[in-house]
Amino acid sequence: MTAITAPIRNGVDTAQVYGTLDALKAQPEAARFEFRATNRWINGTHSRSTIQGFWGAGQEDTSREAPFVLDASEPPVLFGNNEAPNPAEIVLHALAGCLTLTIVNVAAARKVSLTDVSSTLVGVLDARGATGLDDSYRNGFEHIEVSFSIKGDAPAEKLQEIVERAKARSVVYDIVTNPVPVDVLAKVA
Amino acid sequence: MTAITAPIRNGVDTAQVYGTLDALKAQPEAARFEFRATNRWINGTHSRSTIQGFWGAGQEDTSREAPFVLDASEPPVLFGNNEAPNPAEIVLHALAGCLTLTIVNVAAARKVSLTDVSSTLVGVLDARGATGLDDSYRNGFEHIEVSFSIKGDAPAEKLQEIVERAKARSVVYDIVTNPVPVDVLAKVA
Repeated sequence: MTAITAPIRNGVDTAQVYGTLDALKAQPEAARFEFRATNRWINGTHSRSTIQGFWGAGQEDTSREAPFVLDASEPPVLFGNNEAPNPAEIVLHALAGCLTLTIVNVAAARKVSLTDVSSTLVGVLDARGATGLDDSYRNGFEHIEVSFSIKGDAPAEKLQEIVERAKARSVVYDIVTNPVPVDVLAKVA
Repeated sequence: MTAITAPIRNGVDTAQVYGTLDALKAQPEAARFEFRATNRWINGTHSRSTIQGFWGAGQEDTSREAPFVLDASEPPVLFGNNEAPNPAEIVLHALAGCLTLTIVNVAAARKVSLTDVSSTLVGVLDARGATGLDDSYRNGFEHIEVSFSIKGDAPAEKLQEIVERAKARSVVYDIVTNPVPVDVLAKVA
């Protein structure tokens, strides 16, 4: 166990983090995580996902007493009724949340106390792709710009290094910037 | 304007869809969409995104009277307190919502009435990647499996074709399966 002088920093229990890393080193099979979502169509562009259990650290997680319920839809200009944010916007949220928590974890490990981590994300796409009007445009985002404002008790250079390390370690940054194989199976009736 | 016999199908106003497609053909610059999210760290792994306006169809959208507020966090085994689903699970939700609404839109365009679109998504990753313990593992999902159950008034073969077409046109399926360039800028203090 690594010696820790300030176990809770940025709301992260660094002693727990190092304990988990030691456990993963000792038992690499515990590193396998299987996350899940179930989704059901409601009407039009509107659907609802339920998220609760997952496999990780060598067992089925039971820490969530109730499921999380998340909706997705579209604004009227994209044929929905604004029942929820649209899936492309939800990807921006996932990317923001992942980069932010990775920055916070990295800062805690480097004994940097943060006071503010704010970000604005912009994703640009040309709807001629997804509508099938012009195949020279892709369906998804052409690019995403993430602008962070970060404040903490470290020199600017060290905060920049934390951001770079977070990019190199973020789960969703990897999912968005690199290809993930997706199998789609359909049972139809 | 394409002639439509049943303008509302699966909750989708197909007359509006074809009207929009005609407008995009006439004015391709209206196809540019710019989606946005702003995020702020709360504590530990917990952050909150706000989603409201976007640019699309040639103007700033003002159809949402209030912002959508979405949280992200982690379960205790990943150093959070279950304040919200984690970012990787949120990606699964975005993918489910996008494939589902694309299936519904494609079915409406092909005059197929659906009665059920349900899905289960599983994303697998090895935490040795994101924790930095072993660089031979990627940070994000190694693969995602999506299992749909679809019911509607068309033969199984036609429903399968609709699923294939939705894969070929889904915004988030493209974002996840292909690389998206992401620029991360940080203003630090």
